[in-house]
Amino acid sequence: MSYKDSLKTITDGVGGGLAAIIMGYDGIPIDEYFSETPQFDLQLLVVEYANLLREIRRTVALLENGNMQEVSITTDRVRVLVRVISEEFFLVLVLTADGNYGKGRYLLSREALQLRDELT
Amino acid sequence: MSYKDSLKTITDGVGGGLAAIIMGYDGIPIDEYFSETPQFDLQLLVVEYANLLREIRRTVALLENGNMQEVSITTDRVRVLVRVISEEFFLVLVLTADGNYGKGRYLLSREALQLRDELT
Repeated sequence: MSYKDSLKTITDGVGGGLAAIIMGYDGIPIDEYFSETPQFDLQLLVVEYANLLREIRRTVALLENGNMQEVSITTDRVRVLVRVISEEFFLVLVLTADGNYGKGRYLLSREALQLRDELT
Repeated sequence: MSYKDSLKTITDGVGGGLAAIIMGYDGIPIDEYFSETPQFDLQLLVVEYANLLREIRRTVALLENGNMQEVSITTDRVRVLVRVISEEFFLVLVLTADGNYGKGRYLLSREALQLRDELT
């Protein structure tokens, strides 16, 4: 299955999926899939979340409470779920605020495991 | 119900609860409750998460995707759930990695609503 297929599976399989992106901590997307024309600046989101993820990873490392696995940030309009693939890459899923959070977490965790084998 | 009671309700009510803290974005805890002797430096965690939350709030504001409501950061050892109470305060719940994430989110959201009325 191609990266794009993985991203399509996640985005279309979860209720309320808007987009899924495989990206590097350097802020460069490896591949991305949009379910519809995005209602927000996804390019900006991707870059800003890469910055944030680096910051979170730094904090988690400092606290010595294990390796970062999953991050989610919810606003009243959008949910962003992030799953770490490897030291270099992570997987982002953007959902509507009423999107299926639990299923999103499940699909991300499943696909991240698959992508880890393919990307490393 | 006192703040401490709220924090005790959350920590003891969720499976795998280690601690709950009401804190300000300035990094100063308002009140805290520990279910047992913490296995990690909770004081450091609290300060570092306040920094991180400010960073996340800044990013969320920049992206104009609504107001921040909930943040969760999971490692292979610990889950940290954060629920925004108001512009000034947020509520943190620290769980073991196998703690009840769904119930934690529910209890945090319920108590944050209650605390919003009391703290503002």
